[in-house]
Parts: sequence; structure tokens; C-alpha cells
Amino acid sequence: MLGGGCPQQWISGTTGVLPASRWTARRDSKLGAFRFNLRSSSRFKHLVRSLICVTFWQTPARPVNVSVSCRRWVTLHDGHSALVEASRARSDLTVVSIFVNPTQFGANEDLNAYPRDFLRDEKLCRNAGVSIVFAPDAREVYHPSRFETFIEPGELANQLCGAFRPGHFGGVATVVCKLFNMVQPDVALFGQKDFQQCAVVRRMTADLNLPIEIVTIPTVRDPDGLAMSSRNKYLSAEERGRALAISRGLFAAGDEFRSGGRDVGKLIAIAKRHFETVDRLQYLELVDADTLKGAESPLRRPAALFAAAYVGSTRLIDNVILQLPAYHVAHPNDRSCLGKDVVGLSLLDACVHLADPTQSHGVTGQALSGPAIRRIAGCLRKPM
Amino acid sequence: MLGGGCPQQWISGTTGVLPASRWTARRDSKLGAFRFNLRSSSRFKHLVRSLICVTFWQTPARPVNVSVSCRRWVTLHDGHSALVEASRARSDLTVVSIFVNPTQFGANEDLNAYPRDFLRDEKLCRNAGVSIVFAPDAREVYHPSRFETFIEPGELANQLCGAFRPGHFGGVATVVCKLFNMVQPDVALFGQKDFQQCAVVRRMTADLNLPIEIVTIPTVRDPDGLAMSSRNKYLSAEERGRALAISRGLFAAGDEFRSGGRDVGKLIAIAKRHFETVDRLQYLELVDADTLKGAESPLRRPAALFAAAYVGSTRLIDNVILQLPAYHVAHPNDRSCLGKDVVGLSLLDACVHLADPTQSHGVTGQALSGPAIRRIAGCLRKPM
Repeated sequence: MLGGGCPQQWISGTTGVLPASRWTARRDSKLGAFRFNLRSSSRFKHLVRSLICVTFWQTPARPVNVSVSCRRWVTLHDGHSALVEASRARSDLTVVSIFVNPTQFGANEDLNAYPRDFLRDEKLCRNAGVSIVFAPDAREVYHPSRFETFIEPGELANQLCGAFRPGHFGGVATVVCKLFNMVQPDVALFGQKDFQQCAVVRRMTADLNLPIEIVTIPTVRDPDGLAMSSRNKYLSAEERGRALAISRGLFAAGDEFRSGGRDVGKLIAIAKRHFETVDRLQYLELVDADTLKGAESPLRRPAALFAAAYVGSTRLIDNVILQLPAYHVAHPNDRSCLGKDVVGLSLLDACVHLADPTQSHGVTGQALSGPAIRRIAGCLRKPM
Repeated sequence: MLGGGCPQQWISGTTGVLPASRWTARRDSKLGAFRFNLRSSSRFKHLVRSLICVTFWQTPARPVNVSVSCRRWVTLHDGHSALVEASRARSDLTVVSIFVNPTQFGANEDLNAYPRDFLRDEKLCRNAGVSIVFAPDAREVYHPSRFETFIEPGELANQLCGAFRPGHFGGVATVVCKLFNMVQPDVALFGQKDFQQCAVVRRMTADLNLPIEIVTIPTVRDPDGLAMSSRNKYLSAEERGRALAISRGLFAAGDEFRSGGRDVGKLIAIAKRHFETVDRLQYLELVDADTLKGAESPLRRPAALFAAAYVGSTRLIDNVILQLPAYHVAHPNDRSCLGKDVVGLSLLDACVHLADPTQSHGVTGQALSGPAIRRIAGCLRKPM
């Protein structure tokens, strides 16, 4: 069949083609499917530059458990390494996509100024044990004259950062959907620092019935608490010191929540005190973790506190989850919810939350029977 | 892995669940994949009513060549049988989706009045040799409170019927994307009568990198020329006679084109003469077959003539292709382009068209080398 067959006849890449001599496919009788191996001597082991390679690689030799650490923001840092590590722990093959996406840059945002150092990124991926780096050319991702289909996320995309960056999350949803369909992973991992991005992708994946599990990995921080970000390199030493206000403020609110505080106004006020050293606080919002709309006081549902602030001319974002949304514990194998940024969650919270169908996220609530909850409970007891 | 594993724990259907006793999976060593078999005594052989069945059915037992005749308009007729026949000819397993999609009905269009006779449709599918009828419940397709992601097609969706039905093709693109992801076919077939729908779906599939081949099957007509449609049943005998004006007008223009006529105004005028017996001509447009925008005179590129007209209170649409767009001949195995509605195509046309990169459709132009064109030529010489 042409649909799943060799695309060589009718697709050609512009930036590289993976010759047949560079890969082998081996049938895994236990799984009833092919495992795909790139020859280790090939530079393509770490670097797939063109759509044709991915198309080749999907069929008939599609590996069974692929996860993709879906990164569109470079340069890579240790936060991305944590994504790779989490992906390797659960998958046979880890693909990292590196693609600076033109459709998520606004009219006033400079695509070309965005920091990128592809060779360094590729090396970082190689050292982290990534199987394939997928870095397609923008002209292959977006056909220069024909591309015209966009994904429009709903209200989730208009909250928080979305209110200040119109169209941004539409661009994110569109490119992530495209990358998902190119790579066809079973699991995709995103960092919690971009929680709204995770929420939009998770909603899009559920709404469009993409057969992909979305996993959120806790934010990785420097020892002093600053959330890792490609943008931190823009900060001077003095600015960096002042930028600590963001995580300190969020953590203070987290402490208050853990001590039993449920008053939204008070939690925000506690955080806000710390923000005096930033140059401009763009927003500080305590929102429902599912809808990203303002949380009702006193807090009774999963919630998270988000901040965006300028230090010098650098815009930084961060968040803490005050109570975990259902999907974090809906998958018994998913222990990503146990990271250090998760505060205030108890086993009881999780079970009560899961047992309440009005709080279920997507399809999860209905199906969580006694055994499932016991399995989750087992997970929660295990250390990371 | 949860992503591709058993969903039983965390998805449950509302209208039916396929018990494990009703299906078997057998590994096909030649294909290196599972073939899925529903037990023949099961009514589920022909009727899958719930998402869980499809999810079960995807992994690990996903059949290799699935095609889906993607029908959202019921009641079914012989035009749909032709889709099933074409699908069976190229696939191991044919899935028909029957779903009356609420998101493609406008504010003034009555969803509940749309004709549907599910039992009759299911029987028709069974008789036609359909493997699975996929008829999910609307509440499973669109989560009642959470669904919010839509696909926004571009300019293609605003032409022709789209100009009179704002939002319609956005609803079509969204539900087709969802059905594609639920069923995961290798090939999807659509009838040429809904040419604009095919064009939007084809564009969406390419733009979002869905790994699915879109095939257009020629319009099936009654012996007198009337294009088959679920709506024909609304016509009185007298109205039916007058409705023949539509196909007669289009065919007359097709004859003129075949005789060498390339003047857009003249081709339209020849068709228009026949339309006197309809009650209202909504549009009659000669458009570029790729962009669906008004064709330039004299015709040099693939073009098609479209009409929408009211006879009594029934709105009917029809079209003829005057010269085939590239994708119709881009797949050497696809002979659907050789149907009776295709007029004016010669082997020379096809080869010239394919050799001209400015006329290529999506990825096809670049890859069509000499051998590919020879293969196509071989195809064109064969009878249907």
C-alpha cells in the first residue's frame, strides 16, 4: 500500500536523506512489530534532519515504544536533559525534536534573534542518550506556498501568557500536532515550567483523539531555586539575584498552602511580597489547574500559581502546583507527579479527587475503580 | 507502556464495550504485525459503537492496511457502496464511520431533521462487505464540557459551498481529523461529489502531516445522470426531472472542454443554459482544481466546474473535473482518476502536468522522476 509504504518515490527531503545502508529493521517476535536500529557509526543516529528520514522510520520499521521530548525552544539546558532522562526511563527509543517554530512568534517577537546553537544542542542530546534528534527544516514543516491549516485551541490558550501573546498557543498546538504526526510517539514529555503549553497540548491531544500520552515533568531548578530556562543566559549577575524573587514568592505561597492556607487573596499576597525586586510583574495569578481560569476562594480544586515577570529586559515565567490535577495521577506508571514542585498533595487528596467524577480530567475519572486507585496509592508511596 | 497499552483501565465507553472474548489477534509474520479478527458470531463484526472498541482495536492488534470510508452524511446509498468497493479492493479491512456531525451544521440548519436510518445503513454496510461500522456516540466524540480544540482550514474552506456555509468546513476538518485519529486508517476514501470536502481534508491531512493517503472516488450517478445523494429522496418525481438540469449543464461544459474549448466564460455559459429548470442557482463556478479559486481564462491548469442549486426546497450540488489535479495521478496504484466524471485528461496532460513543478500538489511534483511518470503512464493505459 502506498499509504504505509516506501515514500522514496514521492517524498524527497531538502536537507538530508537517510540511506538504506544506515539502518536495519529487526522483527521483535514478542512485540509482533519491528524494532528499528540506526547503525551506530552513522551521524544520523543522533541527527535526523529531514522529513524523509522520519517517514522512512515510521513504517514498516516503527519502533514500539517511542517517546518524544518535544522541544521547540533552544538552546537546550539541564531541564531538557531531565526530559530526556524521564523519556529514556520509560521508552525504547527517545526522539528529541529541535525546531524553532516561526508560527508561535508574534509580530513584535524576533524569530531570528532567538538563541540557538544547534551543534551544542545536538551534542547535549547525544551525551544524554537521545536516540534521534529530529530537526526538520522549516520549509519542510511548513510548505512555503500551500500550508494553511491551523489548530485553534480554546479558552485555555487565552489565559495567563496567552492573554499577552495572542496566537502564540495556536502556533504551539499546530506545530506540536505536526511533530506528533511526523514522529508518531507513544508518549510525549513536556516540562512543567511551560505548564500552560502542557495544558494546551494535553487538551489538543484529547480533543483530536491523538493516541499519545502526555506527561509533564517537574521543573528543574538551579540550586538557588531559579527555574532553568534558555533565557537565563541573558541575565547579568545582578539581575539573576533579583530574579530569585519569582521562585521565592511562589514557594512562599506553596508553604502557606501546605500549612492549610486556602484563601486565594492571601496566597497571592504572600507571593507578591517577594516580587519587589523584579522590574515588572506581568501577571501573578492563582488559577484552576484544569481550566487555567481564576481559582475560587477558598481553594477546593486542583490549583496552581503562575507568574511572569521582567528582570531587566528578560521575561521569565514560573509556576508551582498547589494541588495536582487528576491526569497527573491517572496513569499508574506516571510518577512524574512526585517532583519537588508538587506541594500539598496527599494520597487522600489524590483518591478523593479521583473518586469525584466532577473533578475528572477527560476520560480518567470514570474508569478509576478501586484497583486503579490502589495502584496509584502504591505508586505514591514509592520514592522517585 | 500506557500510551499504546490496554485502555480498559482508564477509558470506558457509554454505548458498548467489546469484550475480549469477541476478538482474536493473530500475528502475520509476513507483515510483521498483528491481524485483528472479530469473531464472526459477534454483532460487533459489523457494528462498533464505542470508542473503546476502536482503541482496543488499534494496539497491539492494529491491522496493517486499513482504509476508512469516511461518511458523515447518512442515509447511505449506492455512492457509498462504491466507496466501500474501492476500499475493499485496496485494503485488508474496511471501516465505515457513520456519524452525523453536530459541528458542521450551521445555526439555521436542523441537525435533528437530517435523514438517518441507522439499521438500514448498517445492513447496507454488511451487505457491501464492510468489516467494521464505526458509529460512535456524539458524547464520546465531543466531550460535553471539555471539548474546545478546532481545526481551522484556510482559504479552500471559504470558496464555493464554504461561502454560503460559514464554519461548515472547519467542522468537517475537525471531525475528520478526530475520526482519522480514532481509526488510524492507512487510506481514506471520499466521494468526488463532495470535491471541496475532499480538497479541505486533503489539505488538512498534508498540513498536519497525518500519515494517511486520501483517495477521491468518482461520483456515482443514476442512469439519467443525477448524482447520488441522500437528499435526492426529498425530490418529487417532477422535481427530480427538473434536477437533471444540473448534471446536463455540467456535462455540456465537459463536452465543450473535451472538444478543445478553454474559454472560462463560454464554458460557464454553455452549462448555464441548462439550469433554467432549477428553482434557484446558488452558484455555478469554474475554479482551479487545486485552490478552488476562480480559474483563469483560457484554461491552462487543472480545473473543475461546480454547481449548487435548489430544486423545490432541496439543495443539490454536483461537479465535473475538466482536467485532473496532480494528486489524482501521483500515486501509481491509484486508478480512481479514471472514472467517468473525468473528462479531457490525456496521458500527455498528466505527464506535462506532473513535469511542471509549479503545478505540483504538495510533495508530489518534486519526486516524480522519469520512472514514476512511466509507471503512471502504464497505469493510465490500463482499463479500470
